[in-house]
Amino acid sequence: MQSTEIDKLTKLIAKLPALGTRSARRIVLHLLKKKESMLVPLIAALQDVSEHIKKCPVCGNFDTQDICNICRDTTRDTGVVCVVQDVADLWAMERVGIYKGQYHVLGGILSALEGITPEDLNIEGLFERLRAGVIKEVILALPATIDGQITAHYLLARLKEQGIKVTTLAQGIPIGAELDYMDDGTIQLALSARKEL
Amino acid sequence: MQSTEIDKLTKLIAKLPALGTRSARRIVLHLLKKKESMLVPLIAALQDVSEHIKKCPVCGNFDTQDICNICRDTTRDTGVVCVVQDVADLWAMERVGIYKGQYHVLGGILSALEGITPEDLNIEGLFERLRAGVIKEVILALPATIDGQITAHYLLARLKEQGIKVTTLAQGIPIGAELDYMDDGTIQLALSARKEL
Repeated sequence: MQSTEIDKLTKLIAKLPALGTRSARRIVLHLLKKKESMLVPLIAALQDVSEHIKKCPVCGNFDTQDICNICRDTTRDTGVVCVVQDVADLWAMERVGIYKGQYHVLGGILSALEGITPEDLNIEGLFERLRAGVIKEVILALPATIDGQITAHYLLARLKEQGIKVTTLAQGIPIGAELDYMDDGTIQLALSARKEL
Repeated sequence: MQSTEIDKLTKLIAKLPALGTRSARRIVLHLLKKKESMLVPLIAALQDVSEHIKKCPVCGNFDTQDICNICRDTTRDTGVVCVVQDVADLWAMERVGIYKGQYHVLGGILSALEGITPEDLNIEGLFERLRAGVIKEVILALPATIDGQITAHYLLARLKEQGIKVTTLAQGIPIGAELDYMDDGTIQLALSARKEL
């Protein structure tokens, strides 16, 4: 008995990550009730993003400029590149705010299960950037999952051939975590990589 | 380091029900990655809803027509009106599909805590509809909360003055529920309203 317009919108919103039909219905109703304060500004903001945001051809970040503001920032260290799986990881690193080098977004990680090969990722773009000879260190900030580590090993082997310094984020117990709730693998790893105080 | 366009959109989406900053970021990224298959259709669907959907002046439902399709449906029983708190409840009733009468959306319930008085709700609209003399029964399908029951009692008193038959949804143990997990009040109520088989 809902109109097709509402139905269509509900189905589209339900497809967004972390949402389902029930939450989509609540969102649509909320938008209908707050048309002037929510629906109209939301449409304008979506249009703005749709029209102005593009993918940076150098690193894969999203920005208004053709070359993103991180790649163009001359105060940042061009000798270090942090390789991440996704733009979300780049945003997470930027929120912390202590990293002052460049990024390279792979757009995914290798996965035998999902059939993702090196050709599907933005890997050649990374090696093309290395060819200029400016980059001295590559930080692999990939997920601490099996696929993430396989991707890191693949990149490590190819980067070593080129004589580039390769580092990775430290692994261990995260701040605020209780040992009791940590998985065995992390505890094992943190124990074997223990540091003297 | 995110562009202001992305930031603005993220903040708007984070204000939607059941969403926060983290899920909003994931949604924005998803929309950016699937521009043609998600972002563009979503903008179109939102615009469609924004342009075409209006509130029915009779019952408070949302529809494309000035008078909604439920109010205009001549196959439905015009002698029964089901009073609900919100359009979401109307939709829930319609999904079940067995109710064939009319609706009346209050747009909220009375609340001493939130300062919601009868004037803030679409209550006068209900009594105006009753004046035509067609409606013989009012079903109060309001929340089984204290505020919901206070609202029901308020309406009951006023409806009784007019000699209208007033009913309410049955209360008890929901289908599939385990007694062990039910609250004491519901068990008490279900026991005192027990039926002979």
